[in-house]
Amino acid sequence: MVDSPNPQRRGFTTDRLEAFSDGVFAIAITLLVLELSLPEGWLDDPLTAFLGLWPSYLAYVVSFATIGAAWLAHTAVTNRIARGDTTFARLNLLLLLVVSFLTFPTSLVGEAVRAEDAERVATTIFGLNLFLVAVITALMWRHARHHGLVRDDVSDDEAAVLTQRLTPSLWGYLALIAVGLFLPVVAVIGYLAIGLVLLLPVRRHD
Amino acid sequence: MVDSPNPQRRGFTTDRLEAFSDGVFAIAITLLVLELSLPEGWLDDPLTAFLGLWPSYLAYVVSFATIGAAWLAHTAVTNRIARGDTTFARLNLLLLLVVSFLTFPTSLVGEAVRAEDAERVATTIFGLNLFLVAVITALMWRHARHHGLVRDDVSDDEAAVLTQRLTPSLWGYLALIAVGLFLPVVAVIGYLAIGLVLLLPVRRHD
Amino acid sequence: MVDSPNPQRRGFTTDRLEAFSDGVFAIAITLLVLELSLPEGWLDDPLTAFLGLWPSYLAYVVSFATIGAAWLAHTAVTNRIARGDTTFARLNLLLLLVVSFLTFPTSLVGEAVRAEDAERVATTIFGLNLFLVAVITALMWRHARHHGLVRDDVSDDEAAVLTQRLTPSLWGYLALIAVGLFLPVVAVIGYLAIGLVLLLPVRRHD
Amino acid sequence: MVDSPNPQRRGFTTDRLEAFSDGVFAIAITLLVLELSLPEGWLDDPLTAFLGLWPSYLAYVVSFATIGAAWLAHTAVTNRIARGDTTFARLNLLLLLVVSFLTFPTSLVGEAVRAEDAERVATTIFGLNLFLVAVITALMWRHARHHGLVRDDVSDDEAAVLTQRLTPSLWGYLALIAVGLFLPVVAVIGYLAIGLVLLLPVRRHD
Repeated sequence: MVDSPNPQRRGFTTDRLEAFSDGVFAIAITLLVLELSLPEGWLDDPLTAFLGLWPSYLAYVVSFATIGAAWLAHTAVTNRIARGDTTFARLNLLLLLVVSFLTFPTSLVGEAVRAEDAERVATTIFGLNLFLVAVITALMWRHARHHGLVRDDVSDDEAAVLTQRLTPSLWGYLALIAVGLFLPVVAVIGYLAIGLVLLLPVRRHD
Repeated sequence: MVDSPNPQRRGFTTDRLEAFSDGVFAIAITLLVLELSLPEGWLDDPLTAFLGLWPSYLAYVVSFATIGAAWLAHTAVTNRIARGDTTFARLNLLLLLVVSFLTFPTSLVGEAVRAEDAERVATTIFGLNLFLVAVITALMWRHARHHGLVRDDVSDDEAAVLTQRLTPSLWGYLALIAVGLFLPVVAVIGYLAIGLVLLLPVRRHD
Repeated sequence: MVDSPNPQRRGFTTDRLEAFSDGVFAIAITLLVLELSLPEGWLDDPLTAFLGLWPSYLAYVVSFATIGAAWLAHTAVTNRIARGDTTFARLNLLLLLVVSFLTFPTSLVGEAVRAEDAERVATTIFGLNLFLVAVITALMWRHARHHGLVRDDVSDDEAAVLTQRLTPSLWGYLALIAVGLFLPVVAVIGYLAIGLVLLLPVRRHD
Repeated sequence: MVDSPNPQRRGFTTDRLEAFSDGVFAIAITLLVLELSLPEGWLDDPLTAFLGLWPSYLAYVVSFATIGAAWLAHTAVTNRIARGDTTFARLNLLLLLVVSFLTFPTSLVGEAVRAEDAERVATTIFGLNLFLVAVITALMWRHARHHGLVRDDVSDDEAAVLTQRLTPSLWGYLALIAVGLFLPVVAVIGYLAIGLVLLLPVRRHD
């Protein structure tokens, strides 16, 4: 584990954890585009083929917004902690696992359109993945608060604001997963809405 | 949102935003090569097959030059600002979205050659994407200037030079998108020319 | 070789070696997801197809945990050294070679399920690759200790703890490679167990 | 162009240029593995199929060693310069272009084996690409020396050593490109040898 070279200092600085995580976020968000490709016969009717890929574009934008928001949340958390511990580092690795996995359900949602059953399955997997991203981020912050990893200059008030910010989307995702069993496209648009809301500033005067 | 851990300081430093963006630019520019591949039967007439891929190489070089130029412009902007705000960060994410999307139209341009209709569609999508990259970069700089994010040691004169630099290519892209409806290859070569011009120094004595 | 610009100072600082390595680790761990894809006819029976991919998910998680653990071990080693030498840099490049290669056997393990012979071959190659990752990491640390690259403030005791940490997994991998010739799935689950153990903290009080 | 925010200081610091370049090198070296894949029927005779891919492994290792050596050479150059100018930055972008392109000829060499004609073509393209990587790196250093970009504490002697180091491989590549027209495999093994030699230390006492 990334423990400190100095045995007196417990925990470890988060410099390389941040650099490594930034790398994974950046790659995961960029790889999404590789799932976009037109079907074989697109040369015959190129514009229709290009526009017909809209479910893939929608899934692409949802995943892009979600990974972007997850990166911003990750930055908000790591900016507010003085050091990490090994549980924090393992939660971080788990977060990176579900963030980089997102490429796969994103491609499923794009492919499943028009096949009702597949659409439902793909949207549910997609929603569960988005939910896990949000849950693990919230757990990282909760762990940091409960184990004294937060910086001294972060007020309780400010810490509480971030907690409030990271929590509500969890219920939104759960609700939309249920919706997606009946109306998959509505759920995907809902996921986009959550992603965009998460990209809004944490505090009004920010 | 990436707000400051210190409530007194509004906005946030751009360190991690720059690192994350550099990562996305670096990945997007490197992924382009994955779209290059020879058709099945290339072993029978390897040299012809290799040279016959020229539209893909052309699109590859255009995208490489454009992403390179966009990265340089991004560096020029972020070097001149003292801090970011949340609008700046969201514009930045939008820029990364269109930069990493570029891989897709690049592959379309490479595939569409010889199918006249498809060539027109692919070139238009490609041009619109390049245009969006330029527009959002210009908007980021405009936003930074109008919201006091620019560093104190950047003179008005210097700021104006960068504005002038980021603007004209917009008209060039629009003109070439129109040209591309009739002469797709000419438009692609024009896009290359704009990319190369954008790689020239901002100021003469630089 | 990355030698110092100052001829008096032998060896070199590991800043860029760490940045480059972090990049390769981050990319290798994120690329794993590209090997996941459902077979052609998945739209007919989406849930079965999705769940039927479990060997690929298992291989994915094993590789993710192993690369994560290898990155943590790499961080633990480079945090404890004051400078690198050229042998260290070449061992580092060899480590990156086997880490980034891991994507390939990971995909083989996923594909080979249900074909007994192929499963054995794929699992053996996978195990050898994991073994090489562990061996080279251990060699880097051993080299650093024997050539005075370790920082002065790292006690002999602390250095010995890291050595003990990096060694036992080697025997585990060898044993599981043998097991995998008869019971491939058991070996893969064993590899996961080793990966997870390596993610535990080095020292109790950490 | 990345010019300095302070008009008095000509040129620019190379921090972000290094970070961006490190990113591209790291991605290019890691993407190579995506070109490795076994043919459809590999499950029937897995070991033979796995070993039969040796030309791809050879090309993979050559490209890995070459990109690794190019990264080390890039580090050696940028460590010795105090600042960059726009020509340096454009040469750097050109270097990144040919480094990231290398994935494509690497895959061609792997596919072309057993088809004599294709082997010759693929090996020649591969060699030309390796040659361009070496040429542009040498040009970057030459440009830095002739335009006063080198740091004051780098002695003429040390600078000359690096020049001598970057030059001879050029002749080696040209000779091997000629050899490859008749004996492709010999040329590829020669490229590997050059890559490994370039990984040796620049100075004896290093």
